Amino acid sequence: MENKYVTIKRFIDGLPSGLDFELRSAPLTPATPQGSEDVIVKNLFVSIDPYQINRMKEYSSSQETVEVARRLLPGQRIDAFGVGRVVASGNAEFKRDELVAGMLGWEEYTVVRPGVMLTKIDSNLDFPLSYHLGILGPSGLTAYAGFYDVCKPKKGEKVLVSAACGSVGHLVGQFAKLSGCYVVGCAGSKKKVELLKEKLGFDDAFNYKEETDVKSALKRYFPDGIDIYFDNVGAEMQEAAVANMNAFGRVAVCGAISRYTDAGKRAAPDMIDVIYKRITIRGFLAYDHLSIYDDFISATSDHIRHGRMQSLEDISQGLESVPSAFAGLFRGDNVGKKLVQLAHI
Amino acid sequence: MENKYVTIKRFIDGLPSGLDFELRSAPLTPATPQGSEDVIVKNLFVSIDPYQINRMKEYSSSQETVEVARRLLPGQRIDAFGVGRVVASGNAEFKRDELVAGMLGWEEYTVVRPGVMLTKIDSNLDFPLSYHLGILGPSGLTAYAGFYDVCKPKKGEKVLVSAACGSVGHLVGQFAKLSGCYVVGCAGSKKKVELLKEKLGFDDAFNYKEETDVKSALKRYFPDGIDIYFDNVGAEMQEAAVANMNAFGRVAVCGAISRYTDAGKRAAPDMIDVIYKRITIRGFLAYDHLSIYDDFISATSDHIRHGRMQSLEDISQGLESVPSAFAGLFRGDNVGKKLVQLAHI
Ligand SMILES: NC(=O)c1ccc[n+]([C@@H]2O[C@H](COP(=O)([O-])OP(=O)(O)OC[C@H]3O[C@@H](n4cnc5c(N)ncnc54)[C@H](OP(=O)(O)O)[C@@H]3O)[C@@H](O)[C@H]2O)c1
Ligand SMILES: NC(=O)c1ccc[n+]([C@@H]2O[C@H](COP(=O)([O-])OP(=O)(O)OC[C@H]3O[C@@H](n4cnc5c(N)ncnc54)[C@H](OP(=O)(O)O)[C@@H]3O)[C@@H](O)[C@H]2O)c1
Repeated sequence: MENKYVTIKRFIDGLPSGLDFELRSAPLTPATPQGSEDVIVKNLFVSIDPYQINRMKEYSSSQETVEVARRLLPGQRIDAFGVGRVVASGNAEFKRDELVAGMLGWEEYTVVRPGVMLTKIDSNLDFPLSYHLGILGPSGLTAYAGFYDVCKPKKGEKVLVSAACGSVGHLVGQFAKLSGCYVVGCAGSKKKVELLKEKLGFDDAFNYKEETDVKSALKRYFPDGIDIYFDNVGAEMQEAAVANMNAFGRVAVCGAISRYTDAGKRAAPDMIDVIYKRITIRGFLAYDHLSIYDDFISATSDHIRHGRMQSLEDISQGLESVPSAFAGLFRGDNVGKKLVQLAHI
Repeated sequence: MENKYVTIKRFIDGLPSGLDFELRSAPLTPATPQGSEDVIVKNLFVSIDPYQINRMKEYSSSQETVEVARRLLPGQRIDAFGVGRVVASGNAEFKRDELVAGMLGWEEYTVVRPGVMLTKIDSNLDFPLSYHLGILGPSGLTAYAGFYDVCKPKKGEKVLVSAACGSVGHLVGQFAKLSGCYVVGCAGSKKKVELLKEKLGFDDAFNYKEETDVKSALKRYFPDGIDIYFDNVGAEMQEAAVANMNAFGRVAVCGAISRYTDAGKRAAPDMIDVIYKRITIRGFLAYDHLSIYDDFISATSDHIRHGRMQSLEDISQGLESVPSAFAGLFRGDNVGKKLVQLAHI
């Protein structure tokens, strides 16, 4: 049997395009040999995440940090979060036909080796499968951990979220509203700005592409200053947020997407502000915060059930759409969590 | 009676020089009128601190933050930390001839109004008076609070200190050694580097002015990476420290002296490092940490008494030397705590 997968044709430098990728296939035996603890999963949804670009570069300092960030080589399969159905299993914990979520890949089938993250989907949680990659998956955990553990919000605080209509951003804004904060989002289109204000309950939102001077834009949106900036983008927006920040303000550095494809996009927050306003700028990775995972799942599923939170998803169909779906992240094509559906249950 | 004081002739932009200042005098009645709670202090030592430059600018965002940072106007007296002797007092807490420390000024006598910080010098602490501005004063508290409260050191961690032969820096390095850390200092002259290694017990030290590429210099001095950077200077050194930092590294942003006199000197730490290495960059002001003041005094005076800590001081004589002493901070003229002695007990 053949297993189709997406790979890079070459290392990527700058903005990715569909042409940087190709579909290949490799033989797959749809059974686990005697003694193997592998689990073979048929992938149903795969997650399309900005951080993958840093793995596709010839060099990025991030490649030397955590396991999930290690470099990808041209021709290699690309591991990625996904949900799927077990088709064969040498592992007693997983049975044929069970639904699972974990580190799968941009491919039709993934052979999950022992030690690779894989969990059964809790069948008591009666939510769409895709939620396990978004609002109840890694994006949700990132938003929840970043907002509660890193930003440590207090009721009434003023919160700015960038890439606010993206997978992580639209959830951060909703958590912030549920915590009694005042929330402004910035995003890259009129349509996104409207969604944020009309559907997601943000107090205000603006299109950063229409602002020539983000520092004065933030002054308009936050006449009383910013207490928390949940940063998904880096560069000018981070500098402007720090300039408009109140004493003891916090910047949770979740992502720096503007820099992923443009090495010149550095954030130079004014250290005079950082000192005198006692600002904390803190980078984090969601997976360091697994101790709050159970809280996150129970609080978030409760919010969804009671209609207090909405999940935005943006789903393309078929493995061949992965390259353009991925490239689209860096053009702001996606609205909410970007996923590709590879097959139906 | 006349009271001589130092003032700025004009707002200062860039590097200060002695010519930006002048001595003026104002009449002073060396007695407190009936009903007044003023305390009149004859100043013995005044502290010469880099932050004052930010008050002397026509505009700095810092001027809108805390009271001690508010803007100075040409012609105005300049408040500054000092130690002195009470010559007249309308306040029952302070008696004539008592020694005091607090917010005095670059002037012969200071009239300390109610509410302005003033404390009696504990006569049980048998240390030189100057120590109450340095190792047992604001510089010491800055080093202690910044190192213990902000950096949260663990034994064996690798620590970088900049402006390491300055007032705060030379104390940070000693606290770090006493906490079992590996400490490297950077400073601006050969003489300072030798002092750090030979007299102050730093594990290593280097002259940053001799390094063309501080990022690779730090790689040499920290082959196993940096855990803590106590930042007194900002700009390239902060960027290089972040580039060489280990996972969960911490930058305590104490000062950004390179930027105080050169608005172009911005630090642009790579946010990709900040995220993937989960780095925290945190600005602080010593005076937010007064809850550890008693600990600081008891631990530090104990260290001094047992010869475990040294105090470096650099004392000029006479009020007229204040302008050049101050300007010298930005050229690295001072070795240790810069003070001016105005009078003898
Ligand atoms: N720390 C962690 O553990 C962790 C976990 C997950 C994700 N992240 C990071 O969080 C950020 C958001 O991830 P996500 O999965 O939620 O992606 P996303 O926001 O759904 O998609 C990326 C969005 O970023 C915006 N964008 C693209 N290029 C930009 C640029 N040059 N400047 C400003 N905005 C730009 C686009 O929206 P606009 O239309 O608004 O431009 C785009 O839709 C990323 O930086 C990602 O790496 C971190
Ligand atoms: N956050 C707080 O509560 C707090 C409290 C006190 C002080 N501070 C800050 O801590 C820092 C040190 O203060 P301090 O009182 O201990 O002063 P200091 O270090 O005794 O004196 C300043 C020293 O900075 C160095 N320097 C000057 N210009 C520089 C430049 N462009 N680049 C690199 N180094 C430069 C010089 O030493 P070299 O010979 O090494 O160049 C100089 O001796 C300052 O930034 C100050 O504002 C903060």
